[in-house]
Amino acid sequence: ILPLPLAAAPSPAAAIRTTALQDNVAWDFVEGLTTEVGPRPAGTPQEARARDWAVAKLKSLRFANVRAQPFTMPVWLRGRDEAHILSPFPQQLVLAALGNSGSTPAKGIEGEVVYFPTLADLEAAPAGSLKGKIAFVSHAMTATQDGSSYGYFGATRRQGPSIASRKGAAAILIRSIGTDHHRQPHSGVQMWAEGAKPIPAAALSIPDADQLVRIMSRGRPVRLHLTLTSKMLKDQPSGNVIAEIPGADPAAGVVLAACHLDSWDQGTGAIDDASGCAIVTAAALHAAKAGPLRRTIRILMAGAEEVGGDGGRAYFAAHGAEPHAMVMESDFGADRVWRVDYKLPAGHEGLASRISAGLAPLGIGRSSALAGGGADIQPLVKAGVPVIDLQQDGTRYFDIHHTPDDTLDKVDREHLQQNVSAWAVALYEIANAPEKLDVK
Amino acid sequence: ILPLPLAAAPSPAAAIRTTALQDNVAWDFVEGLTTEVGPRPAGTPQEARARDWAVAKLKSLRFANVRAQPFTMPVWLRGRDEAHILSPFPQQLVLAALGNSGSTPAKGIEGEVVYFPTLADLEAAPAGSLKGKIAFVSHAMTATQDGSSYGYFGATRRQGPSIASRKGAAAILIRSIGTDHHRQPHSGVQMWAEGAKPIPAAALSIPDADQLVRIMSRGRPVRLHLTLTSKMLKDQPSGNVIAEIPGADPAAGVVLAACHLDSWDQGTGAIDDASGCAIVTAAALHAAKAGPLRRTIRILMAGAEEVGGDGGRAYFAAHGAEPHAMVMESDFGADRVWRVDYKLPAGHEGLASRISAGLAPLGIGRSSALAGGGADIQPLVKAGVPVIDLQQDGTRYFDIHHTPDDTLDKVDREHLQQNVSAWAVALYEIANAPEKLDVK
Ligand SMILES: [Zn+2]
Ligand SMILES: [Zn+2]
Ligand SMILES: [Zn+2]
Ligand SMILES: [Zn+2]
Repeated sequence: ILPLPLAAAPSPAAAIRTTALQDNVAWDFVEGLTTEVGPRPAGTPQEARARDWAVAKLKSLRFANVRAQPFTMPVWLRGRDEAHILSPFPQQLVLAALGNSGSTPAKGIEGEVVYFPTLADLEAAPAGSLKGKIAFVSHAMTATQDGSSYGYFGATRRQGPSIASRKGAAAILIRSIGTDHHRQPHSGVQMWAEGAKPIPAAALSIPDADQLVRIMSRGRPVRLHLTLTSKMLKDQPSGNVIAEIPGADPAAGVVLAACHLDSWDQGTGAIDDASGCAIVTAAALHAAKAGPLRRTIRILMAGAEEVGGDGGRAYFAAHGAEPHAMVMESDFGADRVWRVDYKLPAGHEGLASRISAGLAPLGIGRSSALAGGGADIQPLVKAGVPVIDLQQDGTRYFDIHHTPDDTLDKVDREHLQQNVSAWAVALYEIANAPEKLDVK
Repeated sequence: ILPLPLAAAPSPAAAIRTTALQDNVAWDFVEGLTTEVGPRPAGTPQEARARDWAVAKLKSLRFANVRAQPFTMPVWLRGRDEAHILSPFPQQLVLAALGNSGSTPAKGIEGEVVYFPTLADLEAAPAGSLKGKIAFVSHAMTATQDGSSYGYFGATRRQGPSIASRKGAAAILIRSIGTDHHRQPHSGVQMWAEGAKPIPAAALSIPDADQLVRIMSRGRPVRLHLTLTSKMLKDQPSGNVIAEIPGADPAAGVVLAACHLDSWDQGTGAIDDASGCAIVTAAALHAAKAGPLRRTIRILMAGAEEVGGDGGRAYFAAHGAEPHAMVMESDFGADRVWRVDYKLPAGHEGLASRISAGLAPLGIGRSSALAGGGADIQPLVKAGVPVIDLQQDGTRYFDIHHTPDDTLDKVDREHLQQNVSAWAVALYEIANAPEKLDVK
């Protein structure tokens, strides 16, 4: 019997890739944070508990320089969210107020519904034509692997309330920005544009939005009773959590791996974004397994991402002047990485080739799209720090995003491990790149 | 060119089967009832609107002898359903009170949770050991095509509350009797056993039940705040709706096709049981298309099925003495019929063969299981009226059953049409069977 030919000894990156596919740290992180803290809205005591939990977890995993970075911020708090049709077909509708929604009185308001199939239809409504009415905007969002439909149709949530307010509407309801068929409204933030007075603004679950379209299709006036109570608090405590695996060469720049610790209030934030924090945490540990790192890997678990990115700005204010060699962020769920995008200056060609080669065995292909990063690293990206995106499959992300359904059971353990493996390969290659990489 | 050989002209049953596969009546029925009425809990004004809607609909479809059959009944009404963990990990849980649940005070109750993995574990708890505690019973229900897992695991809902009450529990929470992974609790009725004092009783959504199991797995005492307000009303109006396609030979007995008009309150009762009423209505019309019927086809849209079968008993009290040749019921969703079961006396062999042959092209096989009928026809079945079950595929039924998610989008139009076709074939063959069939 001839011995089987021996393959060459695996490279450190290949060994890391293989080992990380068996990772348990990330699953334990997601399971722990979502179970022992649960929902963690920005600026609330739950988010503070999440910071304490993360600091303890990162210390137990032997990270260095683990600390919270506190800041304060205004906080919008959900109250009661209720709607029912008064006529012609009395029935309840399931909905959730959007972030920064105006509040109705406790007894609610009543109004006639005016239907707009798209945001463009709402924009085309004559000024003043919505006086005292409840605007209802639907749309046709479908699932996309790259999540691009969220960018486009999400405008209904981001801009719809301000447009309706300027046209005199008493309130606005939108079809949830989502792709599922469950009675689970998708919340999310919106900001009032200059000169737009806050009005009650909420997302109907998708079956409820479809029901309201059917009811309106009967051609009779539809009157609705709407109760959306909420309140705004000033100067509430929030904060980031930061931790490091120190590298030997501080001048070579920090590799920042970001995620966010806060979540929306309805679910336990398992895919958004406990998974992201779990992935970067586990991946950093795997990346360091081959020996001491040249560059420091720094974990940023941002606070208050969901409500506008206060955590990312606080990080930049405190650390933006330090040399950063690369920034990356994980904030698109727990499904597998399918594509890698780069935005790199000259001199990074060799590094990008090594990363792409290391990711290929995981089924991840290099694209020609420019990486953009996420909200938590936006100030650094704008300042010119190189960025790489490990793009996750978004096909089912918007079934769950910002709904009560964002819970642990939605995380697929094997997909999570593939993320850890991809991130570990990338962090290893960046942290140990032998060439001089310009830092910002 | 040779002409293609001509097939024999199709039999009336084959023509009905083919035409019914293009049916639109059933879809319009489900769409209309769920949109224009929505939820229709037994004994409420919504159920009364459903009766009015059904009477108008059946008249517009040219049924004969269309009328409501009123009765009165006690009604349990849901109030507020809220729960949150006080310690060790404060967070909300999503749940829904079970039918006939006791009410907490408006400010709720507090208690320590005691966990039982199965109903047998609860039964094994020593008498008095639950004094002042909140019992929590989980179980391992999985989906089955024939729905048999509901029969078994549903005992947790049907008997769990009475058992917990007798052991002194302050309240009981159960894992929803369902097979999904959404934050949608499954409600449903339970009756207090002799000597069991009503206590608050509710179903946690499945992700919430799994979360509570994980929280308890940490080994620390778990304290819960529970608010389940509800009330009981006496002597509320409910009723059946009855309609006929008259046959030429009254002595040959009525063919009764049943469904129920009421629904649980959280959803719009699209699969339970607007679809059943849609199927029997559309099928009766198709069955009559080949010409005058020998036997009368009578549609029974029962009221108050969900809360104990008052409608079926009221029908039997008024009509049980009339000759019935056959009873059938559609109350298991809108997914395709996959099997036909019979419970027939001697003399029906030819009829059963003709029905089975007519169903085979729809992919429906004859089983050796005895048909049992459903709640609305139980009194007739007990009295010995022959019964046939067109068994629907239950694989995904308990993902949706009795949850807010029971909405129109869960109905698959092609599956609904297959149901109509199967029912039309069966009703045609029964109504026109030339042999003398014993009636009860
Ligand atoms: Zn996020
Ligand atoms: Zn988010
Ligand atoms: Zn039913
Ligand atoms: Zn039911």
